[in-house]
Amino acid sequence: MIQRLFEKCLLRPQDLFPSREELEVVGVFNPGVIDSGGEVVIMARVSEQTRERRSGQVALPRWDIEGGGIVVDWVGEDEIRPIDPRVVEMRETGQTRLTFTSHIRLLRSRDGRILDSFEGLRFDPDNRYEEFGVEDPRITRIGQTYYITYVAVSRHGAATALASTTDFETFERHGVIFPPENKDVVLFPEKIGGEYVALHRPNPRTHFSSPEIWLARTPDFVHWGKHEVLHGGSSLWDSGRIGAGCPPIRVPEGWLEIYHGNRRVPGGVGPYAAGALLLDPENPGVILRRSPEPLLVPEADFEREGFVRDVVFPTGIVERGETLLIYYGAADTAVGVVELARDEILGSL
Amino acid sequence: MIQRLFEKCLLRPQDLFPSREELEVVGVFNPGVIDSGGEVVIMARVSEQTRERRSGQVALPRWDIEGGGIVVDWVGEDEIRPIDPRVVEMRETGQTRLTFTSHIRLLRSRDGRILDSFEGLRFDPDNRYEEFGVEDPRITRIGQTYYITYVAVSRHGAATALASTTDFETFERHGVIFPPENKDVVLFPEKIGGEYVALHRPNPRTHFSSPEIWLARTPDFVHWGKHEVLHGGSSLWDSGRIGAGCPPIRVPEGWLEIYHGNRRVPGGVGPYAAGALLLDPENPGVILRRSPEPLLVPEADFEREGFVRDVVFPTGIVERGETLLIYYGAADTAVGVVELARDEILGSL
Repeated sequence: MIQRLFEKCLLRPQDLFPSREELEVVGVFNPGVIDSGGEVVIMARVSEQTRERRSGQVALPRWDIEGGGIVVDWVGEDEIRPIDPRVVEMRETGQTRLTFTSHIRLLRSRDGRILDSFEGLRFDPDNRYEEFGVEDPRITRIGQTYYITYVAVSRHGAATALASTTDFETFERHGVIFPPENKDVVLFPEKIGGEYVALHRPNPRTHFSSPEIWLARTPDFVHWGKHEVLHGGSSLWDSGRIGAGCPPIRVPEGWLEIYHGNRRVPGGVGPYAAGALLLDPENPGVILRRSPEPLLVPEADFEREGFVRDVVFPTGIVERGETLLIYYGAADTAVGVVELARDEILGSL
Repeated sequence: MIQRLFEKCLLRPQDLFPSREELEVVGVFNPGVIDSGGEVVIMARVSEQTRERRSGQVALPRWDIEGGGIVVDWVGEDEIRPIDPRVVEMRETGQTRLTFTSHIRLLRSRDGRILDSFEGLRFDPDNRYEEFGVEDPRITRIGQTYYITYVAVSRHGAATALASTTDFETFERHGVIFPPENKDVVLFPEKIGGEYVALHRPNPRTHFSSPEIWLARTPDFVHWGKHEVLHGGSSLWDSGRIGAGCPPIRVPEGWLEIYHGNRRVPGGVGPYAAGALLLDPENPGVILRRSPEPLLVPEADFEREGFVRDVVFPTGIVERGETLLIYYGAADTAVGVVELARDEILGSL
């Protein structure tokens, strides 16, 4: 493990007003974070459930894309099979539904350690691919534009879509860039070998392997190809579920990628932890070094207890000279920030 | 149903020599087929198993990519859980393995109804994404080049890769174009709205819906984007598993796509059948008309009995004036061909 130079629970559900009176915020987590000219912008996923409870029934909220608001499908408890606190399966069709819906909230901080305001612009679902919510944004600045990858969830599956902005006030949507199921997409901040590069995490139905981190390339952010496996099949702390975390940053030795992983254990997986990959500066499809053990594991109460226990899920990064501020979802409930020394990370790989 | 003007079982496992003495051909099916200047070229998937049987053990063949040949992992029957005749799950890891491995065999026919030779060139696995085999080719001629999409199966999942040729003697590989899990990829034969177009069939792990047919666009065949859902969520004969079948052909009213589907029934799906979509000529993301009932269902013995019962799986098409020769995999075992009148298909939609 590595020394936490600074650590804090930055944001909890009770810090935020719900988007509507009839909802309650149950999670604010997995934030996209970027240093935007002296100010840190945080795009946090906000999960909401209905405030109302009905005996013998379960509320399945979704966005009414035509109407523009949230509607709730109330179904009998006997019509569903609970999978985990977030997910149910409809008994008749076998289809998955979520017990919450997510939007993205924009918050700002001057120093990245204290929030200046708890209210901010919303980035809401607005098309058929976002009916069950928008989740887990990651932000990369490329030139003068900020690109935001995010998970678009709907009856068509969990895909990754792209949006861009220059001011974090208006956003342009570029549609689905990785079809279902694909999450944990992060963009590199510059062209490498003549093309822009992303890490992505396809999740196939047929279980030939545990999920793996893949790499893809694009000339234009819209069309993606040259898919190759980057990392998977580990026998270490990340032998279970893995995925890219923070957008990669350039360090003298190559590209530093902070990612999440957990260990495969009998009957499931262990706690979600964070580790690092050092990728070849010229060809990020090549791993030069990687964490033999995690950099961060769930330790604090807010990392251990919540909607999903024992989760540290890194999604945002801000460079501060010799140190890095790493932002992460904690227990699918809160946002944490931790400060680590860059050289200590690199030395641990 | 529609009149079968001609029908034939074109190719059976016993028609082919195995690729090696120690193997036996258990299936030749799901062929890519194209009219190549007066000759019909057939690229058929050939599935092989080990000839040897060992008491209490199961043979799991795979390609040794470095060595270039097939190797067999013998595992104890108690180490696996059989899923279906083709698929087992390793008890310890939960990972999927296949009981066979597939390559692609090239065959030729002058009239598309009789094979002139049963021996031909092999298109074999040759990289890490093809370790468990290459499957289900589809061929589209674009300009002077034939593009072949095929399923590349490995420990990394079932992805779709692209190859091209001008002579069906040497092939250029273009890598993975749709990451796992994605099958049933067919290319349109020309640019539409300034880009080339494909249908694809992502298969997400999380079951928000049954598999759907999606559409994507590309400037260069390598980079794909603008993903959108084309067809899914049917309540008709194709309410279960669907996927594109033959490459689309241009008809006066638009694009005619022959695809496969089956009905969702309690506990599973019904027989695999074939139907048609008529897509807008200018925007193939729009369905103009579709089959209210299947065009073809398993009827003949060779369509009903085999490695997987009750399967008609269309994958190739040849235009013959007013009629169409449609080639299909039958019961995951044989290749069938059927002749249908184009106007009768269009009239049935």
